[in-house]
Amino acid sequence: MVINSIVLIGAGNVATQLGKAFQRHGKAIVQVLGRNQRNAELLGDQVGASAISNPYQLTTDADLYIFAVPDDEISKIANSFSLGDQLVVNTSGSMGIDVLKNVSSRYGVFYPLQTFSKSRDIDFSDIPICIEACCDEVCDSLTLLANQISKDVRKIDSEQRQSIHLAAVFASNFTNHIYHLADEILKDAGVSFDIIQPLIIETANKIQHKSPKESQTGPAVRGDMKIIKKHLELLKSDSNKKELYNIISELIMGGR
Amino acid sequence: MVINSIVLIGAGNVATQLGKAFQRHGKAIVQVLGRNQRNAELLGDQVGASAISNPYQLTTDADLYIFAVPDDEISKIANSFSLGDQLVVNTSGSMGIDVLKNVSSRYGVFYPLQTFSKSRDIDFSDIPICIEACCDEVCDSLTLLANQISKDVRKIDSEQRQSIHLAAVFASNFTNHIYHLADEILKDAGVSFDIIQPLIIETANKIQHKSPKESQTGPAVRGDMKIIKKHLELLKSDSNKKELYNIISELIMGGR
Repeated sequence: MVINSIVLIGAGNVATQLGKAFQRHGKAIVQVLGRNQRNAELLGDQVGASAISNPYQLTTDADLYIFAVPDDEISKIANSFSLGDQLVVNTSGSMGIDVLKNVSSRYGVFYPLQTFSKSRDIDFSDIPICIEACCDEVCDSLTLLANQISKDVRKIDSEQRQSIHLAAVFASNFTNHIYHLADEILKDAGVSFDIIQPLIIETANKIQHKSPKESQTGPAVRGDMKIIKKHLELLKSDSNKKELYNIISELIMGGR
Repeated sequence: MVINSIVLIGAGNVATQLGKAFQRHGKAIVQVLGRNQRNAELLGDQVGASAISNPYQLTTDADLYIFAVPDDEISKIANSFSLGDQLVVNTSGSMGIDVLKNVSSRYGVFYPLQTFSKSRDIDFSDIPICIEACCDEVCDSLTLLANQISKDVRKIDSEQRQSIHLAAVFASNFTNHIYHLADEILKDAGVSFDIIQPLIIETANKIQHKSPKESQTGPAVRGDMKIIKKHLELLKSDSNKKELYNIISELIMGGR
């Protein structure tokens, strides 16, 4: 089935960027359902959709309903209404495919692996989209749709998707927090964060060509205990950074 | 003083990439001194320099001597010979400027803030180069030289440079190790690492435009305890990853 009309359930980061991408690719976003009417309206205005905050106002004849809400809400919402045999998908990295099986007989997963913000528009063409479906017909429909916005569409089962999501938390959320710790260290020294931006970009670019293991540099992988001691001394008044420094250095040195 | 002839002391990642960059910009690399003659020759061949492994073979009339050796070697080397009033610099993030003051009366620091590998050639134009010098004349000479390869040349004192280096260890070495942990998680699930490469690039790109604090996404910053519990359960047989997951999640949630 070719999907032309889409309802967004949720008005957060993922709903915003998916909605905008589908709209750019000629899809009609017909409704945005948000818990908060104002947020639904903000997104609705951007994608030319009407905004609703009550599930009972949902149209029943859209080609696809995309659930893009936090995991702890999805089961709640999923049990509050039924959509018969309309196609429904969740976009969660960690929920199993079955979470929507009470909503419709045609259900699946459409999981774009990326970090999204409302204010930063994303080109989906290189973003891996992980597809899982209740049956071949739904799988084909979702794959066809995913291929319209991305060159990288993969069949991934619920168990693998959980691991991918966990890996993404490390590779994105945790590295971003470590950028923040670096920012704090620089601020304390009166140095502007922009000084390490090229380093951050190069570190990310490096592992496009060789494995992180082969790309490792720095005092820990060289076993340079003098620098490590000096750094721990610099961090002596910050027990959190010191603990993290110790643990990750030991992991790099293979001593754990 | 305009610097035209350069001697490299060291034949590792930093010496290799600095030597190549200076050669591309028309400088004469006259000698490479390496502890290991073979490594010195490998780099010497690439930059058109003669390779030596004995400090007593050092030419005494080069415009600049760049010390690019591990910190625990630099003091040792620095005490083994004198270069009168020839210009000498170290490239270390964590050694003070004084480490070379017994080698020459004209000494300084030339610290390019980047992660270097022998096999990956680097465009220096956006790389911040941190300059420190014993006096104004040396500072001017080093700044002139740095400006020939980079648009971003900064005066940074030894104390600030230590903090910058520490921040760089977090932002580059530690994030790279976390990429490696993500790689391990994916391998265990039978998923190829390339699936998270676009996410890693986007995470690094995001903080070019807004602060890491504003860029933070993921279960911890949302306080999504269901997902966090699920991830800790997935990691139950890997105590290192589990500990790291706990610590960084708590830091993101502000609970430490």
